[in-house]
Amino acid sequence: MGTGDPQRPRDPIEEAVRQLRRLPGIGTRSATRLVYWMLKAPEGTLPDLIAALDRLATEVHMCTRCGNHAAGALCTVCADPRRDESVILVVEHAQDVLAFERSGEYRGRYHVLHGAISPLDGVGPADLNLRSLLDRLRDPIVREVVLATDPDIEGDATALYLARTLQGLPLSVTRLAHGIAVGTEIEYADAVSLARALHNRRPF
Amino acid sequence: MGTGDPQRPRDPIEEAVRQLRRLPGIGTRSATRLVYWMLKAPEGTLPDLIAALDRLATEVHMCTRCGNHAAGALCTVCADPRRDESVILVVEHAQDVLAFERSGEYRGRYHVLHGAISPLDGVGPADLNLRSLLDRLRDPIVREVVLATDPDIEGDATALYLARTLQGLPLSVTRLAHGIAVGTEIEYADAVSLARALHNRRPF
Repeated sequence: MGTGDPQRPRDPIEEAVRQLRRLPGIGTRSATRLVYWMLKAPEGTLPDLIAALDRLATEVHMCTRCGNHAAGALCTVCADPRRDESVILVVEHAQDVLAFERSGEYRGRYHVLHGAISPLDGVGPADLNLRSLLDRLRDPIVREVVLATDPDIEGDATALYLARTLQGLPLSVTRLAHGIAVGTEIEYADAVSLARALHNRRPF
Repeated sequence: MGTGDPQRPRDPIEEAVRQLRRLPGIGTRSATRLVYWMLKAPEGTLPDLIAALDRLATEVHMCTRCGNHAAGALCTVCADPRRDESVILVVEHAQDVLAFERSGEYRGRYHVLHGAISPLDGVGPADLNLRSLLDRLRDPIVREVVLATDPDIEGDATALYLARTLQGLPLSVTRLAHGIAVGTEIEYADAVSLARALHNRRPF
């Protein structure tokens, strides 16, 4: 897309703007502002950022057990002997692990599928990190699987597929409760969440 | 600030979030989103970004003539023989050069002061990139200096100081016109801009 000769090395400021502009939520204006900020930042700021991104690119791999991001062979959750091994919470993406960890409410383990079943996008069960989940579930220490895929068509299809696949195993299979978000005024709740909240109503 | 042992290498994801959070306009939430995006981005995306930032850190210096950012000894403006050498536009920051270049209206040269006089912040004339400006102005090819410092107390003080210093030189010293911005509805123009616009009114 550039107008210059591709053989000629691009101006370093232009090139930095071009690369930063690829990040989500960062347009040309923000990218330019970031580059000029970096050029004026206290000595060490930019090298520290570069070193951190370099570590991100080279040190972060997939946890061999659960598929979460990991700096070593195992992610911090799988490597923590204090986490409850009897519950595995299944999520679509590594970011979802972070969201649960932030809530501070969950003490079990995770399994990251790296996607959800989506026939329209050509994503089937074989494209997900599923085989290692089934291996993990053969361990009799696991007593519960919580299906925490997203509450959308793909997430629901994936949860349904998993629930069927796990049928017959001596496991309790549960799904996250859906309903209105805490703090939501009912007036402004979306119709689908409200319907689910009504459907999942519990004794007071 | 950190809670961990400073001797222990920090988790690479945490460290990347911490470094990105230092950028202007990026909080913990955006930094986290960026890091997870980077980990999932197509192969080559993160290395390309790192390489671009590396070039920014190592290849960009100060133009030896005007103080603008430069990849070589001279910035792109100073290195361009087609630019009019008879006019020098004096700005506070390198970003200001970019703003004028974007307007496409200016064909002369620049001089970047790297700041403005601000007694409260302990910034005096000796702290600015001024000596080389005075050297440049000794060249009889220069016929006009445009003072394009910011329209605030520091910028005005700097312009005043420069105008006084340049008195007696065979140069025309001009200042950017201040007034209401193009496209501004008068109803919403700020009082100071409106006052300046009135003061600088021109024959129709």
